[in-house]
Amino acid sequence: MSDVKKVVLAYSGGLDTSVILKWLQDTYQCEVVTFTADIGQGEELEPARKKAEMFGVKQIFIDDLREEFVRDFVFPMFRANTIYEGEYLLGTSIARPLIAKRQIEIANQVGADAVSHGATGKGNDQVRFELGYYALKPDVKVVAPWREWDLLSREKLLTYAEKAGIPIDMKHKQGGAPYSMDANLLHISFEGRHLENPSAEAEEAMWRWTVSPEAAPDEAEYLDVEFERGDIVALNGQRMSPAQVLTELNRLGGKHGIGRLDLVENRYVGMKSRGCYETPGGTIMLRAHRAIESITLDREVAHLKDDLMPRYASLIYNGYWWAPERKALQVLIDHTQQTVNGWVRLKLYKGNVIVVSRDSKSNSLFDMNIATFDDDGGAYNQADAGGFIKLNALRMRIASRLNSKR
Amino acid sequence: MSDVKKVVLAYSGGLDTSVILKWLQDTYQCEVVTFTADIGQGEELEPARKKAEMFGVKQIFIDDLREEFVRDFVFPMFRANTIYEGEYLLGTSIARPLIAKRQIEIANQVGADAVSHGATGKGNDQVRFELGYYALKPDVKVVAPWREWDLLSREKLLTYAEKAGIPIDMKHKQGGAPYSMDANLLHISFEGRHLENPSAEAEEAMWRWTVSPEAAPDEAEYLDVEFERGDIVALNGQRMSPAQVLTELNRLGGKHGIGRLDLVENRYVGMKSRGCYETPGGTIMLRAHRAIESITLDREVAHLKDDLMPRYASLIYNGYWWAPERKALQVLIDHTQQTVNGWVRLKLYKGNVIVVSRDSKSNSLFDMNIATFDDDGGAYNQADAGGFIKLNALRMRIASRLNSKR
Amino acid sequence: MSDVKKVVLAYSGGLDTSVILKWLQDTYQCEVVTFTADIGQGEELEPARKKAEMFGVKQIFIDDLREEFVRDFVFPMFRANTIYEGEYLLGTSIARPLIAKRQIEIANQVGADAVSHGATGKGNDQVRFELGYYALKPDVKVVAPWREWDLLSREKLLTYAEKAGIPIDMKHKQGGAPYSMDANLLHISFEGRHLENPSAEAEEAMWRWTVSPEAAPDEAEYLDVEFERGDIVALNGQRMSPAQVLTELNRLGGKHGIGRLDLVENRYVGMKSRGCYETPGGTIMLRAHRAIESITLDREVAHLKDDLMPRYASLIYNGYWWAPERKALQVLIDHTQQTVNGWVRLKLYKGNVIVVSRDSKSNSLFDMNIATFDDDGGAYNQADAGGFIKLNALRMRIASRLNSKR
Amino acid sequence: MSDVKKVVLAYSGGLDTSVILKWLQDTYQCEVVTFTADIGQGEELEPARKKAEMFGVKQIFIDDLREEFVRDFVFPMFRANTIYEGEYLLGTSIARPLIAKRQIEIANQVGADAVSHGATGKGNDQVRFELGYYALKPDVKVVAPWREWDLLSREKLLTYAEKAGIPIDMKHKQGGAPYSMDANLLHISFEGRHLENPSAEAEEAMWRWTVSPEAAPDEAEYLDVEFERGDIVALNGQRMSPAQVLTELNRLGGKHGIGRLDLVENRYVGMKSRGCYETPGGTIMLRAHRAIESITLDREVAHLKDDLMPRYASLIYNGYWWAPERKALQVLIDHTQQTVNGWVRLKLYKGNVIVVSRDSKSNSLFDMNIATFDDDGGAYNQADAGGFIKLNALRMRIASRLNSKR
Repeated sequence: MSDVKKVVLAYSGGLDTSVILKWLQDTYQCEVVTFTADIGQGEELEPARKKAEMFGVKQIFIDDLREEFVRDFVFPMFRANTIYEGEYLLGTSIARPLIAKRQIEIANQVGADAVSHGATGKGNDQVRFELGYYALKPDVKVVAPWREWDLLSREKLLTYAEKAGIPIDMKHKQGGAPYSMDANLLHISFEGRHLENPSAEAEEAMWRWTVSPEAAPDEAEYLDVEFERGDIVALNGQRMSPAQVLTELNRLGGKHGIGRLDLVENRYVGMKSRGCYETPGGTIMLRAHRAIESITLDREVAHLKDDLMPRYASLIYNGYWWAPERKALQVLIDHTQQTVNGWVRLKLYKGNVIVVSRDSKSNSLFDMNIATFDDDGGAYNQADAGGFIKLNALRMRIASRLNSKR
Repeated sequence: MSDVKKVVLAYSGGLDTSVILKWLQDTYQCEVVTFTADIGQGEELEPARKKAEMFGVKQIFIDDLREEFVRDFVFPMFRANTIYEGEYLLGTSIARPLIAKRQIEIANQVGADAVSHGATGKGNDQVRFELGYYALKPDVKVVAPWREWDLLSREKLLTYAEKAGIPIDMKHKQGGAPYSMDANLLHISFEGRHLENPSAEAEEAMWRWTVSPEAAPDEAEYLDVEFERGDIVALNGQRMSPAQVLTELNRLGGKHGIGRLDLVENRYVGMKSRGCYETPGGTIMLRAHRAIESITLDREVAHLKDDLMPRYASLIYNGYWWAPERKALQVLIDHTQQTVNGWVRLKLYKGNVIVVSRDSKSNSLFDMNIATFDDDGGAYNQADAGGFIKLNALRMRIASRLNSKR
Repeated sequence: MSDVKKVVLAYSGGLDTSVILKWLQDTYQCEVVTFTADIGQGEELEPARKKAEMFGVKQIFIDDLREEFVRDFVFPMFRANTIYEGEYLLGTSIARPLIAKRQIEIANQVGADAVSHGATGKGNDQVRFELGYYALKPDVKVVAPWREWDLLSREKLLTYAEKAGIPIDMKHKQGGAPYSMDANLLHISFEGRHLENPSAEAEEAMWRWTVSPEAAPDEAEYLDVEFERGDIVALNGQRMSPAQVLTELNRLGGKHGIGRLDLVENRYVGMKSRGCYETPGGTIMLRAHRAIESITLDREVAHLKDDLMPRYASLIYNGYWWAPERKALQVLIDHTQQTVNGWVRLKLYKGNVIVVSRDSKSNSLFDMNIATFDDDGGAYNQADAGGFIKLNALRMRIASRLNSKR
Repeated sequence: MSDVKKVVLAYSGGLDTSVILKWLQDTYQCEVVTFTADIGQGEELEPARKKAEMFGVKQIFIDDLREEFVRDFVFPMFRANTIYEGEYLLGTSIARPLIAKRQIEIANQVGADAVSHGATGKGNDQVRFELGYYALKPDVKVVAPWREWDLLSREKLLTYAEKAGIPIDMKHKQGGAPYSMDANLLHISFEGRHLENPSAEAEEAMWRWTVSPEAAPDEAEYLDVEFERGDIVALNGQRMSPAQVLTELNRLGGKHGIGRLDLVENRYVGMKSRGCYETPGGTIMLRAHRAIESITLDREVAHLKDDLMPRYASLIYNGYWWAPERKALQVLIDHTQQTVNGWVRLKLYKGNVIVVSRDSKSNSLFDMNIATFDDDGGAYNQADAGGFIKLNALRMRIASRLNSKR
């Protein structure tokens, strides 16, 4: 166990991180600085301040990071149409690098030599936090209590909390939440416990941010989405900030039963796990972004992006946001978005996000004169296709001929 | 214009290919052999025979290729989770190689020196047909009337038909179909004319195979899908042949408003075009296949497949089914499917295909002992994660340290 | 045949392009503007002027493009360690986009509606020229005489030249060059005729820029190469311009028998062809660039570049320099070169380019403290490797365990 | 420290693994089984037996694995033209999976619960060994003494050896070898100590298997290499087994100064390290294999292989030989080699491997009729190229036109 003088803890104010706070003080005899961020998880932050004060914490940081989160993390990721393993929109993954960055900034500011977080030793989040810490402050000490302590069972944890005078609410006394949850402005996730058997359907009561498609309105709702350089800047004609955009899309998606996902995914640490996710706004954004790219991006640029996307997604899933290879890919992705300007019209209805039309005054590459089935007045010479096909077939023809000769 | 003695025409029996039949006879003074295939387009084939006879065709081939189509083309493609440009399930693309192959078989059988098709000079289908022809019979002559003749306007075509005594039905007299359509067991597509403006919503009346999500049943329906080696072999416990599977999935998908798509895509010949597609069964298959792979495929194998998928999709879209690089990829893909056995439960509801559970008795890689949030009895040593993270971070730490020293 | 008023011809002054000049005047009755560039091919340009004047050409452009060629084309390409099909350094391919660009600039300046070049209809160069023309001036008319005229045999060409009063030197009278050659500051290439049989060794007399390894000096020569942002800026301590760098490397490489290559390559138009190349300076550059990257690039960034390189190479080989996907890749590549600063020491000896040492004061990522086999004082904790391996093995262990249970 | 009953040690008979043997007996009080393999490292194996007996080892395995090594590991890897980071031929990496496999076979045979190796905690070899162990026997215990013991300095190790009565030869008394070496039939490697400064040239005295190019014969030597399905089966017309092929190529390469490499590479554990390698036979094989592929592989298949190669190389370098994704790639690679039959003629001279000619009676795709610069009698229609270029340029023309309109 390394010597720790002052540690910045990512502190939610909940039971687990409160136990960690106390455990850090007890175990390392060190000063604890708490950091609590609003990234749109939808919880009050002031109780965290009070609890921290209760433990004698002197330096308490509470930051509203919602705009930075969406502008500098969520939007850049969506420019790449990022999906992990064909389904997952990376809602948890994308928040961790921001937390890590802010924790390190605070550590530098208050002269802390260590940072700590509440992620377990089995999941991806520990990796995402710690790769961020190490990339930004290579000699920082990292304390990951779940990998160190012996409070691995629920009972031990509650006993420790009781002794430490940490308030335990009813939910925990009665066996704790049926799932491990994580929320931010992009999504809410559910993992573990009741979900551990992937052959059993998740309970309807689990879902929080979205109504079920069945319970959604019987009438569809149209939505106009406007893009500038690949980012959404207005909804239904009203300009909004990034966090406002995502907040409003979450409201609309949630209302229409959009963005639920039940998935078995492959963790970076090597196991399969089952997760359920609600990403109402993100699901709308992804569909809309593909639609605006469909008329504004060159074919080969779009295909290059598609070819690189799974790699970019894995980098984010695995926690490499601050790695140089993620940044290099981002430079390419951002470069391609210069022309991604225009609007998309969507229809939202009972779980469906339906693209019905799209256009770009400044950057459409759709040429009706050429695409038309009717007479195009010579814009396209059909005879060209003959040579195009002949030469594209040439290597196969040569092979086939030589083979048949032999 | 090359000298043609005997040509095998891909003949639907419709107006356009009837004009082509006559035009081939008139222009090349050659014998025409017709070939009409049932690939699930849902049209009567016997009228095609009668029309061909009317034109004096002596050798008429009418084949039911539905099982071969699904077994040897659709299923192999779905093993790769194939999607073109993030959305399109390649319904048209995957039928062309089969038509081309059968046409060449017939040409060899009847001693024809040429083949012909009714695809225009602007689209992808000409490429898909002809790359197939050339790969399988390198010295075959290809007659693509739309690239040769001067009947490019609707009026000229109708005039020619009238003179030739080809029956013209009401629809054509009144201006023709509002869209160009293509159907097979996997999908029906709509392109052109009324759809040429991508900023205008498609008319509800266009859609044929699916009800709208609004018109779909108010009650969800569960569906159990069983896989062997990556292919669906049973639905709701009932074993079926490949074509039966897809037929039944189309029925279910169509009933629940599943599988509509409105897209701007990039054609191989270089232009953007707008297409609308109904792929009810395919949409269900893709979702189910990803779900069964999620518990039966190794992570890195799954990621390798994801990385290669866009390339594989482009090969099929562009018409390279018979090319050696497609076959090489298929060998890899098929190899990975040995373990893709098990079942998936889906919920179908108003346009949604929702995965609710999945399992594999023989090949699940999901290990509850390890994944559990509760005490795992030492199955996984959380301390291992520390070293894992430290070494994965090492290159970034070294870089960061060296930079800060300088 | 389209109507041409004024055409800018890429004119070398040699027999073939002189025949083309006359043929354009005869066939299109149009004004011809000649453009002759010095891209380091090592030939006098003034004779081209005189010949052009002889044909009544009024607007004659002769430009020294050597610095632009190396700075804006060769160097950017080498930043990617570009090799086509494992061997070829793309010497011809990289010059064509510059010629095309300058031709279009001139066309715009003189108000020409067409451009013309002397590349045949079988090779890659026609594609490289014309993709450039069309990308930069989409409605330009392109005249490719070798695809249009009937002078396909040597005899017909000479007869036409004689009639036109074009001087024919001895070489051509005696049957023409035994190879088709192309040269610029990066390389000289040989194709065709005597080389058409890939099972026969090329004659020693063919090679022009390099001595044979056997004839090279018996003593090795050391060379210090200095890089800034991925480009060579100094040799043996002496700062030089880009073209000077390449000129000097060609001298050194040629002297030491470096950079010969005898290859069968796959052309974009679909056939295999055999080419012989001398790229003395380029061969040295590539080796040196990899060496400087080896200590200044992050591992994953280097691997990302390696993964993308074959695609980038194909784009250049196929003529897509001016395409948006090449530019997008270049943005990524250039971004990575910010840290590629330092020096490499090479030993040149009889065909060998041997890297013997390398360092970077500002950007080395080589950390001796960590790499050492001796005691590192705790810089690296060997125990971390245990966890690293355990988690990387986890998915295979789970699979193996589950399989053995069944 | 886990409880070990019986451990199979990869035992070279050298000082380090002898200390390990004794340390395992002392520390774990367990039975040690030794396994010594001949993989072409060129050392006597019987001394290892005697030493093992001296320590009371009862079960001693000494196997000649040379043919299996080349046939099942080296040759499959060369089918992919595998190179790591543009330079390294993976000589060490490819031997480890075989050792691991045989160790596990022995463990199963003798009922051992553990395996052990002598690789340090900083290098790649520990990973390669252990990933193999875990993949093949998921619950095996792995003892990696270098990560456990406190003998990290040379002095401590020698003291331990002395006490244990392990014979210490002069070399070690005088400070040990100036490099860490590893040899097998594919290569010999040098790392560490004198090589730790990448800005200093390696000493000529270091190299073992090759003469320097300067010291190589003044006369070139021709070599004919014959391939079947991508593997070399004969040299100069004489059929040989895989190990014989590689032995003879090593002799020829070594004689002609071929295959030296001085490299800074990126280790999987996160640091850069400098290595020097001699791979005489492998260097010849790679060049010859590319040459035979150049006339027997389809272009797109070859490009697919090139695109996948860096990934395949990283898998082997990182130790994932036994992973399912390596096997999936191998299936693809091996499939492509069916047509890779024919011969290549090479010229070996002072460090150079020069391809001078190549042919394949059964599988050449080189078509002289089409490639010729002379009249081809219509085999290729040059006019086709016009359409080919026009359609390939279309997307750029459309973009350029639309941009200039706006």
